[in-house]
Amino acid sequence: MNYNSAGVDISKGDRLVARIKAMMGASGAQIGHFGGAVSFPVEKYREPLLVSSIDSVGTKTAVAKVLCQVLTPDTTHYHSTPDTTHYHSGIGRDMVHHSINDIACCGADPLYFLDYFAMGIMDVDLASEVIGGVIEACKRWEFPLVGGENAEMPGVYRDDEYDLVGSITGIVEQSEYIDGSGIIAGDILVGFPSAGLHTNGYSLARKVVESSDFDYTTDIPELGTKIGDALLAEHRCYLSEIRELKRNFKVKGVAHITGGGLPGNVSRIIPKGLKAEIDYGNWDEPPIFDLLRKTGNIAEEDMRTTFNIGVGLVAVLDSEYTQAIVTDFPDDLYSPFLVGKIRFAG
Amino acid sequence: MNYNSAGVDISKGDRLVARIKAMMGASGAQIGHFGGAVSFPVEKYREPLLVSSIDSVGTKTAVAKVLCQVLTPDTTHYHSTPDTTHYHSGIGRDMVHHSINDIACCGADPLYFLDYFAMGIMDVDLASEVIGGVIEACKRWEFPLVGGENAEMPGVYRDDEYDLVGSITGIVEQSEYIDGSGIIAGDILVGFPSAGLHTNGYSLARKVVESSDFDYTTDIPELGTKIGDALLAEHRCYLSEIRELKRNFKVKGVAHITGGGLPGNVSRIIPKGLKAEIDYGNWDEPPIFDLLRKTGNIAEEDMRTTFNIGVGLVAVLDSEYTQAIVTDFPDDLYSPFLVGKIRFAG
Repeated sequence: MNYNSAGVDISKGDRLVARIKAMMGASGAQIGHFGGAVSFPVEKYREPLLVSSIDSVGTKTAVAKVLCQVLTPDTTHYHSTPDTTHYHSGIGRDMVHHSINDIACCGADPLYFLDYFAMGIMDVDLASEVIGGVIEACKRWEFPLVGGENAEMPGVYRDDEYDLVGSITGIVEQSEYIDGSGIIAGDILVGFPSAGLHTNGYSLARKVVESSDFDYTTDIPELGTKIGDALLAEHRCYLSEIRELKRNFKVKGVAHITGGGLPGNVSRIIPKGLKAEIDYGNWDEPPIFDLLRKTGNIAEEDMRTTFNIGVGLVAVLDSEYTQAIVTDFPDDLYSPFLVGKIRFAG
Repeated sequence: MNYNSAGVDISKGDRLVARIKAMMGASGAQIGHFGGAVSFPVEKYREPLLVSSIDSVGTKTAVAKVLCQVLTPDTTHYHSTPDTTHYHSGIGRDMVHHSINDIACCGADPLYFLDYFAMGIMDVDLASEVIGGVIEACKRWEFPLVGGENAEMPGVYRDDEYDLVGSITGIVEQSEYIDGSGIIAGDILVGFPSAGLHTNGYSLARKVVESSDFDYTTDIPELGTKIGDALLAEHRCYLSEIRELKRNFKVKGVAHITGGGLPGNVSRIIPKGLKAEIDYGNWDEPPIFDLLRKTGNIAEEDMRTTFNIGVGLVAVLDSEYTQAIVTDFPDDLYSPFLVGKIRFAG
């Protein structure tokens, strides 16, 4: 395990690393010093591919911060009450779930994770909550956090703002690698429901809320909760769903619906000469999307290219599975629905 | 290859990704979409370990920025003249070299790299220069950049500031993993010369320069250059040196000298009950260190725990090699020197 603090006051840095080690428990007992190390399960693979991704949670952090500040105006540490800690640990879980989905789109299983947490002025409590969420999600999905870095950079970051970067490594047998190359006209697009914005579209969403009559703590009947809570709904992890698909179907392509929405992400896996025809309206959106649409008077085109509008993941399957995918999918997983079809382009 | 832009204006994001792809050339032709993928060389290993590290360059970026601004006051883009581009591309190379050293300390060879570049307001020219440096260093050391993310986060980062995070994955046969466990009293510490601060100690260095009579463009005879140029000297990569050590000696431990200096980093690889006795004064420091020491009136203890003071890497070997390490090392590599010995602690 290789977890360091850079540029952080020594007592703060040591305190943070000690807390992180305590949260990791036995899962932090990997070997490694300057680098973190894990055994590669060489016996299980013939022609393995390593699949990796790096990403950050973006400005979803700002919503978590504002909500905590407004809900606990009497504390200087906006994040440190029992009522609000889940907002920042949720950011940590978001980061891990997002990363898992990215490599699972290629058919890969996660092997290990690294994180980078940087802040203008290091707040050990806040950092512990965020990284605690990372550790929790890694444990839940059964792979180790093998290393990380905490950095304090007052001149680069705004003082009380932070960024969280995650890097994941996974593995897949080459013959099971999913890259969209077998997709043909007539194939179906199968969607899985999102919980909300996940980790994309927060610049627009924040602009809409902040120029409206609401604030993040406004209770909205249609949402059944505060706007802020709906915006912070956790990024879902679709690893179980993708594994289930692989077990039962020939999966031709999988797209994680992030920035760029359905059009921007589905197109990343479709071969030239083909296009995706999306049946918008064929699924239920979480109500936060309609609230943003109406409050911000957002054009439908912008809704579709900015938000996932209710679809967190899309898989491409042969049309012979049109019936089976809906009727035979296990009840304890997110329920798939038909999102559209592959057509010839032009 | 999986290279995206998040939160960046679409035309800027596309322009940046297009430039990155052009710079990568054939090396960017790896497979991968949501995750970047590389083949795992399974035939070469019996019990492979994957070794990974994540880190950022820290506030060295601020020195590059100020120097470019001062040298080219007539341009709005402080980085875009032929005379100054190397400062920001150097930051990219720094990041890669730092990362390689971290995993090479475990005996690992680099397999692939990912980078994350975030800025308050995305500057495509600047980002291209920094990432161009990353790509150049990856090519030089012969491993692919398999993915990356560019993010624009005006509320989180200061507008014209950036952070660069690198994540590296390498591989080592378990029997060749270097972890310091075989170190015993009497072993020797062998150092390799640094070029300057590398990527650590910039908070203190900047404070010293900014409260002195100098500025970053001041020419200093002892340095033979401007202070800023000496501060931006590139982080050396010691991969060739570590490979050479492994070929000829039983290498018991290797420490990358980063934040915390010699005491903080050598202690990371030494077993309990032992300590490193460092012969300070036994090597030549690059002159930037003495300039900082005298200008900032920095206590020697602080010099040693903040800066590498001339030693970029330390290897621990059996004392039987005391003569050979100095006389037999190839001339085209950085020349090793004796830094100290391992003693019983207490």
